Amino acid sequence: MVMVFLQNKGLKRIFSGIQPTGIPHLGNYFGVITSWVKLQEECSSVLYSIVDLHSLTIPRKPDVLRESILDITAVLLACGINPQRCFLFQQSQVPEHAQLSWVLGCLMGIQRLEHFPQWKLKKASQTSGATVGLFTYPVLQAADILLYKSTHVPVGEDQILHLELTQDTARHFNKKYGEFFPVPKALLTSAKKVKSLRDPTSKMSKSDPDKFATVCITDSPEEIKLKFRKAVTDFTSEVTYNPEHRLGVSNLVAIHSASTGLSTEEVVQQSIGLDTAHYKAVVAEAVIEKLAPVRNEFKRLKEDKSYLEEVLSSGAEKARELAAPVYWEIKTLVGLN
Amino acid sequence: MVMVFLQNKGLKRIFSGIQPTGIPHLGNYFGVITSWVKLQEECSSVLYSIVDLHSLTIPRKPDVLRESILDITAVLLACGINPQRCFLFQQSQVPEHAQLSWVLGCLMGIQRLEHFPQWKLKKASQTSGATVGLFTYPVLQAADILLYKSTHVPVGEDQILHLELTQDTARHFNKKYGEFFPVPKALLTSAKKVKSLRDPTSKMSKSDPDKFATVCITDSPEEIKLKFRKAVTDFTSEVTYNPEHRLGVSNLVAIHSASTGLSTEEVVQQSIGLDTAHYKAVVAEAVIEKLAPVRNEFKRLKEDKSYLEEVLSSGAEKARELAAPVYWEIKTLVGLN
Repeated sequence: MVMVFLQNKGLKRIFSGIQPTGIPHLGNYFGVITSWVKLQEECSSVLYSIVDLHSLTIPRKPDVLRESILDITAVLLACGINPQRCFLFQQSQVPEHAQLSWVLGCLMGIQRLEHFPQWKLKKASQTSGATVGLFTYPVLQAADILLYKSTHVPVGEDQILHLELTQDTARHFNKKYGEFFPVPKALLTSAKKVKSLRDPTSKMSKSDPDKFATVCITDSPEEIKLKFRKAVTDFTSEVTYNPEHRLGVSNLVAIHSASTGLSTEEVVQQSIGLDTAHYKAVVAEAVIEKLAPVRNEFKRLKEDKSYLEEVLSSGAEKARELAAPVYWEIKTLVGLN
Repeated sequence: MVMVFLQNKGLKRIFSGIQPTGIPHLGNYFGVITSWVKLQEECSSVLYSIVDLHSLTIPRKPDVLRESILDITAVLLACGINPQRCFLFQQSQVPEHAQLSWVLGCLMGIQRLEHFPQWKLKKASQTSGATVGLFTYPVLQAADILLYKSTHVPVGEDQILHLELTQDTARHFNKKYGEFFPVPKALLTSAKKVKSLRDPTSKMSKSDPDKFATVCITDSPEEIKLKFRKAVTDFTSEVTYNPEHRLGVSNLVAIHSASTGLSTEEVVQQSIGLDTAHYKAVVAEAVIEKLAPVRNEFKRLKEDKSYLEEVLSSGAEKARELAAPVYWEIKTLVGLN
């Protein structure tokens, strides 16, 4: 019902998911999380899912996974995700995700999945052999999006192929069973990619083996200072923004800009006369200041496990209210009802 | 709880599934269905599932599938399946099947599925390309069985590899997360295979293009007489039971034996002096007599759609009472709770 209204009015329903795989880093913060906070203010129907079923596709220790689900919930709330303005929920608490995934898998050709570049990469990285879950990941992802008849999905460039699969699945279903799913559109986010502090040719990554490469958003001020002090720059001491030729210092400028809300030109202007060694300390301070309220709120929320669980369970309840009637209609369309 | 009791007492929990793909034939009747009726009398915990999610792995028309689900329900009840003695339910009404399938798929290596002989056969038979559903069929099958901590599964020879996959999945899960699933054992059924009436080198099959090859259990007496009249035998007119060298007439003897409850020796003895042409009429009569009550009861039940729906919905409710706490424990073991 809600959906029909939204579509008739040309309004958006946005779906996005985040894996519970450890504390997000600065790149996640200035990328996904900041854009999520913005979207919940701009759009009246937004669903954010902690996609724990997806995170099972790579072997996880049960206790670590359990803790990560609460961590990411606390992080998102601490960063400003507001359960009054969006549906924040844990994927596995809404049974219809896995159910729809089965139905959609019965429409989807296996060859398409076999040719996914990400599958080839991930398959190669699994020493003990790739699992069915890893292979069928994009099917569950299509189900996540279509279950809510989502109209828009925020995606990074590396997710465009996945979204195309979802779009084609929606079209295939509509052709076979009658017009039902909106074909979801990409919302390309404009956020600059944050690079590793130790190798600015790579993205900042949770799994970086170099412990100084990645700033987690709950790092202490001391950790942040140390990591920026050890950040790799070049042999020119002047601060300039030239992301093609001066990757290291430009990454610092971009982080500085994102942390203060000033443009890159403005932060460069402010830094005239500083050498990069001193500039690193300035950027670290800006990051510490930006993250301090997040870190404090995260700590407070993590003490209150029952509140986090309550947020997740009421989020799941609201998500199910949308998902259940949609899946019921799907079952009727395919002949299961 | 129930399961613990059963296991402690060394008792069985049996799971079996049947696809809603048209009216069963004589082979299904004397094979699966008769053994199902027997098992419900012998064992206190038996689950029979109409596995509609599996039937989506091959393209189906929604109206046909919907009707087939009611057909198979009516057939099973008409054949003596008693919802007071077993749980008879529709797979898609119990969300935990698809949910557990996802979790198990994250444990199962993809290579194992790629080497399944049935997958290779089925893949080759799909002109428009095989789907993910067809490929991951054995994963859902493992979930069907393990969801109820089943201890025994009636299987035909062609299903032994599938059961082995389920057994290995149970062991793999137990090794990774602690002893949880019983490793289900095969209950090999002793029923003789019924052969095609037109080509006794093949099994009787629903999809046989020769309309005289297959006797459906709701065929009219006229159809049954005609099909037996057209049954292929050999040039010897005497009735003997020699399934290696006289396939056609031995198939008739086997059907005759199964229909009357007499041994093959007894029916051969009774038929001394008959030529195969007359014997075909005798067998047809025995089949007609055996199936008459099934056919009448089927017709009656099909008129009472709301009763069939009530049987399925109360069956699903009982199945969910078993499935939900098991899946909850599984979620806790893997770290989703």
